Amino acid sequence: MKKKILYIGLLGLGTVGEGVAELLLKRKNKIKNYEFVLKSIVVKHLHKKRNISFPSNLLTSDFRKVLKDEEINTIIEVIGGIRPAKEIIIEALERKKNVITANKMLLAEAGSQIFKKAQENNCYLGVRASNIASYRLIESLSSSPSEIKKLVGIFNGTCNYILTEMERRKKDFSFILKEAQRRGYTEKDPSNDIDGYDTAHKLAVLLGLTSGYFPPLHSFLIEGIRRISYEDILFTKELGYRIKLLAIARRDNDRLEIRVHPALISRNKAISRLEGVENGIEIQDEVGVEIGMQAPGAGKYPTATAILEDLISIAKGRKITPPSDKKEVNLKKIEEVVTRYYLRFEALDKPGVLSEISGILGKYNISIQAVLQKGEKKERGKESVPVIMLTHKAREKDIQKALGEIRELSVIKEEPLLIRVEEGIF
Amino acid sequence: MKKKILYIGLLGLGTVGEGVAELLLKRKNKIKNYEFVLKSIVVKHLHKKRNISFPSNLLTSDFRKVLKDEEINTIIEVIGGIRPAKEIIIEALERKKNVITANKMLLAEAGSQIFKKAQENNCYLGVRASNIASYRLIESLSSSPSEIKKLVGIFNGTCNYILTEMERRKKDFSFILKEAQRRGYTEKDPSNDIDGYDTAHKLAVLLGLTSGYFPPLHSFLIEGIRRISYEDILFTKELGYRIKLLAIARRDNDRLEIRVHPALISRNKAISRLEGVENGIEIQDEVGVEIGMQAPGAGKYPTATAILEDLISIAKGRKITPPSDKKEVNLKKIEEVVTRYYLRFEALDKPGVLSEISGILGKYNISIQAVLQKGEKKERGKESVPVIMLTHKAREKDIQKALGEIRELSVIKEEPLLIRVEEGIF
Repeated sequence: MKKKILYIGLLGLGTVGEGVAELLLKRKNKIKNYEFVLKSIVVKHLHKKRNISFPSNLLTSDFRKVLKDEEINTIIEVIGGIRPAKEIIIEALERKKNVITANKMLLAEAGSQIFKKAQENNCYLGVRASNIASYRLIESLSSSPSEIKKLVGIFNGTCNYILTEMERRKKDFSFILKEAQRRGYTEKDPSNDIDGYDTAHKLAVLLGLTSGYFPPLHSFLIEGIRRISYEDILFTKELGYRIKLLAIARRDNDRLEIRVHPALISRNKAISRLEGVENGIEIQDEVGVEIGMQAPGAGKYPTATAILEDLISIAKGRKITPPSDKKEVNLKKIEEVVTRYYLRFEALDKPGVLSEISGILGKYNISIQAVLQKGEKKERGKESVPVIMLTHKAREKDIQKALGEIRELSVIKEEPLLIRVEEGIF
Repeated sequence: MKKKILYIGLLGLGTVGEGVAELLLKRKNKIKNYEFVLKSIVVKHLHKKRNISFPSNLLTSDFRKVLKDEEINTIIEVIGGIRPAKEIIIEALERKKNVITANKMLLAEAGSQIFKKAQENNCYLGVRASNIASYRLIESLSSSPSEIKKLVGIFNGTCNYILTEMERRKKDFSFILKEAQRRGYTEKDPSNDIDGYDTAHKLAVLLGLTSGYFPPLHSFLIEGIRRISYEDILFTKELGYRIKLLAIARRDNDRLEIRVHPALISRNKAISRLEGVENGIEIQDEVGVEIGMQAPGAGKYPTATAILEDLISIAKGRKITPPSDKKEVNLKKIEEVVTRYYLRFEALDKPGVLSEISGILGKYNISIQAVLQKGEKKERGKESVPVIMLTHKAREKDIQKALGEIRELSVIKEEPLLIRVEEGIF
């Protein structure tokens, strides 16, 4: 039997690209009669010092060279972002090259279009690396006879690291963020991570791959972790919770609820115990089958491993099964979501404050499960003291109306903070 | 496009078979242009009362009728056991029918042969239901560029339920087992579960599917949970551990260590927190990627869902990729395993006992990390008192030699109990 060869063009030689090159060099040949040849690597700076040295004819700064190379039948895109990644991928598919990409931002934006293009050109489209935490479940979920009823995930290692370190080191958000930036744990512009977009991209891709519906990013709530203080971590701990940035999807009869935001989750729940950069996902389906998965969410080897799994799928002759083309989804508006809430008010330390706040909440039928009042005015360097409330279940619309009135009270000194409570699965 | 039809013969209508029939009846059609038709169900007793009623022409007690039916192109085997399941599966494949099976016992015994048969006949062989806890990881693991370095799993819900209930209700093994039998939670003959064989079957199948090497059951240690007492649960709790029946595989350079036995695992570790019938698996690969999965290990809907996922894979045109045909594996002998040990000796409550025991352990270079001596002779109704020791790392061969000498001491009144300690992953 003649050996078949996969000629590979690697676009991008950052941490992940380097991991791919390294694994390609040292992997044992698991697939008989197949060889992987790394033929070209597209880099920004041809003469940059690197951890691995490559023959200079392997490197190019011109991605068109790789696209035009007819021998290259597979490209691996690890440059990220929309441009020029999108045009590269589309053109590669049109030129009948298989494509492997780690680009969740692009897939969240144009997943349907790219899958269609791959199918039209009978090419393999490998997207395992776009959600390291959950890709192992995609095949199973998209073949399941039952729909997902509920999904809860931690998909961003940077946020989980920051929240974990805030608790561990008793420090505020900005302190831990700055330190993480100094150590190179975060992107220079961390907003994609800490404002929830990266989590939202991964959730959108996961839903798209399993259900066929790629929810547009503007169609659901995306909130980040910037406003969470160490005090919030402390207060929620006292109440028996941890704060995690969660991706949540839930089917409520025919309506789909999608949201990304920080949430209080009971310290007894498995997902609250994921620490540092660890990612995880929990899923419950219509017939009650519950599964959970814990995995790294990013990193050199986890991402490179996912990419090589796609290469091996190509060698095994796997075809992509594009997600079904589902257009009609009845999305639940955030205003109609019903959940419990953690509220922090910064109020003057005066008698009657609690009664004013709870009076407004009562007016909107929001009942209170727990209250914490902390009178540590001096130590905080603020004129206000925090009033913490944990509500029973309430409708988001009612909470927002109540907050609208509460923030106008003269005793309230800052924009109130609201964090939703999530029950979790395990 | 003409609709393709999968004509299905279902062999077995126990809990799982009923679940399959139920899901087939109510599932939405996720696969365009494909229809699933349940054409025949093979049952033991034609006139038994059932939860779902089927048209009587659907039921037959003769599996040959299904095998000879040329319209039936897919059989689902959920009768279990070796005979007649094996001959049915082999004949179905020879007659070019796709086969889906939940039969881990059979796959552990004859997995290579059955996969070869499927490949020769160009049929799909679906085995997801043979290890509900881990099947979602199989595709990923068998496509990974890195070998598994370490795998730790809880694969038997009955054992995990018994161990959980022993701790929760402070009762002995036999009490909880009897109750579980009375409630129908276990098989009438529970030895397949509690003596570790079911766990061993699932581990063997998992290793076979991911590495190509199906380890024969006689080639590795299989120990069950019969000898664990409530006192052991109590003592290990005091030492910071839980006892779980674990499936363990570990690569040590070129040698593969495989074993199934109860183990102490730190209460800080994720896998120690799996309660009741819950199953789980943790894997670390050569490049350090660590993943964990929590899932039910059995049950009507989890098993039926796995079977339907295989049906949908057939409809999607997926081919099996039989595991590579790996014959040469250098298995590490149990005598050479190095780990820590929990030891319980039943000894007369006399001075000098501890010194006698520790003297023998010292002779074999086994050093002791912790000792518990409990002098509650009267309450136990035994003439002996338990002496508990937790050792530092030692070689199994040395421990066994030491136990050989210790059991001969006149102060020792029962066969010593040894439980290995496992470090776990997360």
